[in-house]
Amino acid sequence: MDEFELIKKYFHNEQNQSFGKCRNIILGIGDDAAVFEIENNRQLVSSVDTLVENVHFPADVCAKDIAYKALAVNLSDLAAMGASPHSFTLSLTLPSINENWLADFSAGLFALANQHQLLLLGGDTSKGPLSISIQINGTVKKNQFLRRSAAQAGDKIFVSGYLGLAALGLQQWQQASKKTTAAQARFLRPQARIEFAEGLYQCGVRCCIDISDGLLSELHHLSRASVLSLSLHSDKLLLHSDLRALDTQQSMELMLAGGDDYELCFSVAADNQDKVLHLAQTRNLALSCVGEFFSEAQPCVHLESRQPLVIHKNGYKHF
Amino acid sequence: MDEFELIKKYFHNEQNQSFGKCRNIILGIGDDAAVFEIENNRQLVSSVDTLVENVHFPADVCAKDIAYKALAVNLSDLAAMGASPHSFTLSLTLPSINENWLADFSAGLFALANQHQLLLLGGDTSKGPLSISIQINGTVKKNQFLRRSAAQAGDKIFVSGYLGLAALGLQQWQQASKKTTAAQARFLRPQARIEFAEGLYQCGVRCCIDISDGLLSELHHLSRASVLSLSLHSDKLLLHSDLRALDTQQSMELMLAGGDDYELCFSVAADNQDKVLHLAQTRNLALSCVGEFFSEAQPCVHLESRQPLVIHKNGYKHF
Repeated sequence: MDEFELIKKYFHNEQNQSFGKCRNIILGIGDDAAVFEIENNRQLVSSVDTLVENVHFPADVCAKDIAYKALAVNLSDLAAMGASPHSFTLSLTLPSINENWLADFSAGLFALANQHQLLLLGGDTSKGPLSISIQINGTVKKNQFLRRSAAQAGDKIFVSGYLGLAALGLQQWQQASKKTTAAQARFLRPQARIEFAEGLYQCGVRCCIDISDGLLSELHHLSRASVLSLSLHSDKLLLHSDLRALDTQQSMELMLAGGDDYELCFSVAADNQDKVLHLAQTRNLALSCVGEFFSEAQPCVHLESRQPLVIHKNGYKHF
Repeated sequence: MDEFELIKKYFHNEQNQSFGKCRNIILGIGDDAAVFEIENNRQLVSSVDTLVENVHFPADVCAKDIAYKALAVNLSDLAAMGASPHSFTLSLTLPSINENWLADFSAGLFALANQHQLLLLGGDTSKGPLSISIQINGTVKKNQFLRRSAAQAGDKIFVSGYLGLAALGLQQWQQASKKTTAAQARFLRPQARIEFAEGLYQCGVRCCIDISDGLLSELHHLSRASVLSLSLHSDKLLLHSDLRALDTQQSMELMLAGGDDYELCFSVAADNQDKVLHLAQTRNLALSCVGEFFSEAQPCVHLESRQPLVIHKNGYKHF
């Protein structure tokens, strides 16, 4: 099987290709590049994320879950911008051709892509150590995107979902590679908060980030980018039932510095809190207000908790 | 050094960032994604290519050349479409942080990017076996792009530059890793034919491909995509002086099935030949007419030569 047969067999998905029309695709898969245009009055949002075997996922994760996760973490970047999914390119590096693996990978990839009407524009396959690089395109109405630097003093800080669950799932996976617990499922299949995020701008939200490397690390990004201090009331974070068996120190470390949550952290003026809470309710998404931004001579992150905490890691380190 | 310091130190290039304005960048490096819009009446052209150590380049190639090549092969995809460079994202997987290596990589990358006013939009770094994945964006005037499927019966087929030189360079590199010969330099630093390609549509050219996996392989793509036969007069290919020492069989194999040429192969109606030849002259680019398209019940590639040829490889295989 050569590269062209491989692409045709595993990366031509009819349902997916049918999105080409609504994405204004002029030329799709099969040429040196894809050609497309976006609607007037919309802007393109572009991001890239790579997953490497034994770095971002253990070697015994199945191909379906690898593909799902590789796409989900990119969708999460679009969610952080409040963007709607448009299209993506895939660069797949494989040690060898294993057709069962490819069939599973393709199934996991298109399951998620088709759910979001996200069109595969093209890609590239190489021989080498397993890694998956996805570049994703989204769109926003002109200038209606969220960013890290837009927090205002007085803004309330919100976090979606249950943090620490994915990090616990990785620990559980390392003990027994089974997708039986909620935590393991969350580690393998992050849920990008696309539909929720698409409504945030209309609720008055301007500042947002997705939580990929641990909440504390992301809060430092927001503080630096917005040149504001913030306080985090760690006791306000929602505690998932699977984390209740752990002692406070352990669960806090997972919630504040565990990786792979792919939830959203954003801020909004106090007057607009109710709109955001209502949006979360209509999307069936748990939400908690965990802090606020304020001005200070030396902007920094203030961690507040009822019990003394020692957080050993300040988020996932890439090297 | 963490990921953020790394990006700031090696991937914030002032001259490069200054292109943001002419590229209509609304939000650049440093957020979860970049936001941009393209001019009215232009379309976006998108492609991706990954280079893996020991697959696409030997482990002893220097970081400057690796970066240059990783970007050049992507620029070559834009050239194949007749597109103008716009922006790119970089996903860099590194076994460890070596600051000398990164400084060299950055220098090689921005040397070429800045030459083409190609803006780095953002990226991602991971720990893992060395590989470089670049996704590139170009633009074309509405519907004025080149494609594989647009050849017409009677079209003349042209090839730019000297084929086989890069493949010879790889052979020479494997014997002695020095950048002293023209062939070695061509292997390490492919010259994407951007400026030439940008003029092709105006000369009446519609069908084009870049030669990355060997000419014969690319001709098969054109024949299949355009549903036409073609004849290739191999004796019409320009023979670079460095290939003259080889016997005909060896040089033909390099020219027809060697990889990494990154020259262009395109077709044009006979009436428009002179325009294309004039364009090549103004760009100082060697050009030869090597065949023509014609109709046949079973479209295929006819290889014609004065001497009997046995081509063992039909282009570079990815697996």
